[in-house]
Amino acid sequence: VTSRLPTGARTLSLGPGPEFDRIRDIIQLLGPQGGALGDDCALIPAGETVFALSTDVSVERVHFRLDWISLADVGWRASAAALSDLAAEGADPVGILCAVTVPSRAAAADLLEVISGVRDAAQSFGALVLGGDLSSGSEWSLAITVIGQTRSPVTRGGAVPGDSLWITGALGGSRAALESWRRGATPPPASRQRYARPVPRIAAGRWLAEHGARAMIDLSDGLAGDAGHLAAASGVAVEIDLDGLPLAREAEQEAVKAGISAGQFAAEGGEDFELLAAMPPEFDGAAAFARECGIPLTRIGSVVEGSGVRLLDGGRVVTVKSFDHFG
Amino acid sequence: VTSRLPTGARTLSLGPGPEFDRIRDIIQLLGPQGGALGDDCALIPAGETVFALSTDVSVERVHFRLDWISLADVGWRASAAALSDLAAEGADPVGILCAVTVPSRAAAADLLEVISGVRDAAQSFGALVLGGDLSSGSEWSLAITVIGQTRSPVTRGGAVPGDSLWITGALGGSRAALESWRRGATPPPASRQRYARPVPRIAAGRWLAEHGARAMIDLSDGLAGDAGHLAAASGVAVEIDLDGLPLAREAEQEAVKAGISAGQFAAEGGEDFELLAAMPPEFDGAAAFARECGIPLTRIGSVVEGSGVRLLDGGRVVTVKSFDHFG
Repeated sequence: VTSRLPTGARTLSLGPGPEFDRIRDIIQLLGPQGGALGDDCALIPAGETVFALSTDVSVERVHFRLDWISLADVGWRASAAALSDLAAEGADPVGILCAVTVPSRAAAADLLEVISGVRDAAQSFGALVLGGDLSSGSEWSLAITVIGQTRSPVTRGGAVPGDSLWITGALGGSRAALESWRRGATPPPASRQRYARPVPRIAAGRWLAEHGARAMIDLSDGLAGDAGHLAAASGVAVEIDLDGLPLAREAEQEAVKAGISAGQFAAEGGEDFELLAAMPPEFDGAAAFARECGIPLTRIGSVVEGSGVRLLDGGRVVTVKSFDHFG
Repeated sequence: VTSRLPTGARTLSLGPGPEFDRIRDIIQLLGPQGGALGDDCALIPAGETVFALSTDVSVERVHFRLDWISLADVGWRASAAALSDLAAEGADPVGILCAVTVPSRAAAADLLEVISGVRDAAQSFGALVLGGDLSSGSEWSLAITVIGQTRSPVTRGGAVPGDSLWITGALGGSRAALESWRRGATPPPASRQRYARPVPRIAAGRWLAEHGARAMIDLSDGLAGDAGHLAAASGVAVEIDLDGLPLAREAEQEAVKAGISAGQFAAEGGEDFELLAAMPPEFDGAAAFARECGIPLTRIGSVVEGSGVRLLDGGRVVTVKSFDHFG
C-alpha cells in the first residue's frame, strides 16, 4: 500500500480511506508547520508566477517489478508519475530532482539505464534534470521531485455545484497490463505501454486551466478515491456514471476475464495518470480539446451539493475498491 | 556508500573519487538535459530572487541505525542534511517535501515519530513542510527535498587564488559518535547530539554570503572530498593545514583511541554539516561572525593556483580517506 501525502494548497480535506487517515494524522501532527497541505502540488508564489512542487516515491516490488518492466521504464514511470502532479495543477515543468537508491546487486550500467528513463521523460515534457542524490539500499527506489511553473494554478478545491466533470484520454490500460502480468500472461503492447511509459497530461492540463477549469486532480490511485479528494477539497459531492467512462481497449477484454463491468474495472484501476477536471456548466470545448491535445475529453459526471462520490453502474449506485498497487 | 548527484550551477567539475566518477557518468548521459549540474543546490531565477533546490536521501543501515538513534532523530537528521545544502548556497529555507518509505514492521506511531523530527527541523530553521509521499518498503528511507531563496547565491565555483579558506563551528563530533557506537560504547551526549541532531548552518551561510563569500560547500562527505569539489568547481587548488582545524572536544579523545592525529580524524569524518567558505583576502570578520552567529569561524587554509587539495599535517603533506558512512 502506498498513499500520497498531498502537497500544499488551500484545504486540508481528503476523501475517505485508511490511507488518508494516516495522512490526516500527519497533517494534525504538523500543525502550523504543515502550511496549507492538501493538493497535488505545493504552491510557492514568486512575483507574477507560481512555482508548483511535488515529490513522488517509487519502490521496487511496491510500485513496479523488474520482471515486468525495464530499468529505463522505471526511471520514466517514476518521473511521469511526479510530472503528472504538475499537469493536475496546470503547470509547465521546469525541472526534476531524482534521489535514487541502488541495490548492491546492481551493475554500474543499471543506474545509468534508470537515469536514461528519467532523462527521456524530462526531455519529452520540457524539464531539466536539476540534480539528485544516490544511495545504496536493499531495493531500487526513486524519489522524484518536480518543479513547475504557472500563472494560475488549478487546485482540487474550486469545483462548485453545477460544474461538469470531465476526463482526459482513456482509463484502465495500466490495470489491464497489471492483470495480464498477474495471470502470468504478456500484456498487449498498448497496455504494457500505458503501464510502463505513462504520459503525464501536461499539455492537456494547461489547456484545461486556460479554458476555465475550476478544479483538477490526476488519477493515480483510482477514479473513486481521487474524485473523493476533489469533492472533499471543494466541499461538494460528485456523481459519476461508470457506463460513460472512456475505456482503453484492453480494459474491456480484461474486465470480462475479471468478471466485472468495464466501468468498474476502469474506475478501480490506478496509475492511468489521466486528469479529472471540473469545468463550468457552459464549457463545450471537448472537440477543440481533442483537436488541440490529440486525446479525447469525455464528460463523465456532475458536481452537486453535498459530500462524497456517487458512482452509477448500469443505473445502480455501486461502490468500488481503491487501487492499492500490489495489495 | 552514498554519493551526491550535485545539483545545478555553473560547472560540471567535481573532485576525484570513484563515487564521483559515477556522477560524472550520469552527467555525461544526461547531456543537455542535465542543465548545469554541479553544486549543492539547483538554482532557479525568479525575478529578483533565486530559488535553490536540493534533494537528499537517508536510508536505514546506510545513513543511520535505529539501535543508535531514534526515529525522531532520523527525521531531524535527514531534514538537516538537506537544509545544509541551502546553507551552503547562502539561501533561506522556504519549505521541505518528504518522501518516506515505511517498513511493514513499523507501527502507525513510528511514522508520526519520524515526521515529528522533520517538523521540528523545519520549525527550527524557518521552513514549512509543504508536502511529501508515503510508500511501504523493506527499510526506512527518507528522501527530503528542500527549497530556499536568496538574492545572491554562493556556489562552489567562485574561489580565486589568494582567497582564504574558513570553516564554521568544529569538526569530528559526528565521527566521534560513530566511532563510539562502533566500539559498542555509548557516545558522550555532545557527540551523540552532533550525529543525531546536526545543525544546518543557515544563519552562518547567510552571514558569509553577505560578507563576500566567493565559494561555499557544506561538509557532508569529509573535508578532503568536499574541499576537492570546491577546488574543482573553482578551477583552483586549496591548501589546508590539519593542525589548525577546529575540533569537537570528543574528536580529540576518539582520535587518540584510533591512533591518528586529531586533524586527520576530523578531516576524514563526515556529516558535521559545517560550512567551508572561500573569503576574499581582505576578509577579517571572524570575531564579528562569532559574535553574531554564536559559533567560531576558523581560518584553515588558502586558495592557490593549480588543482586539487593539499593537506598538511604536522608540516608534512598527507592523504586522508573519504568518509563513506558505514563502509
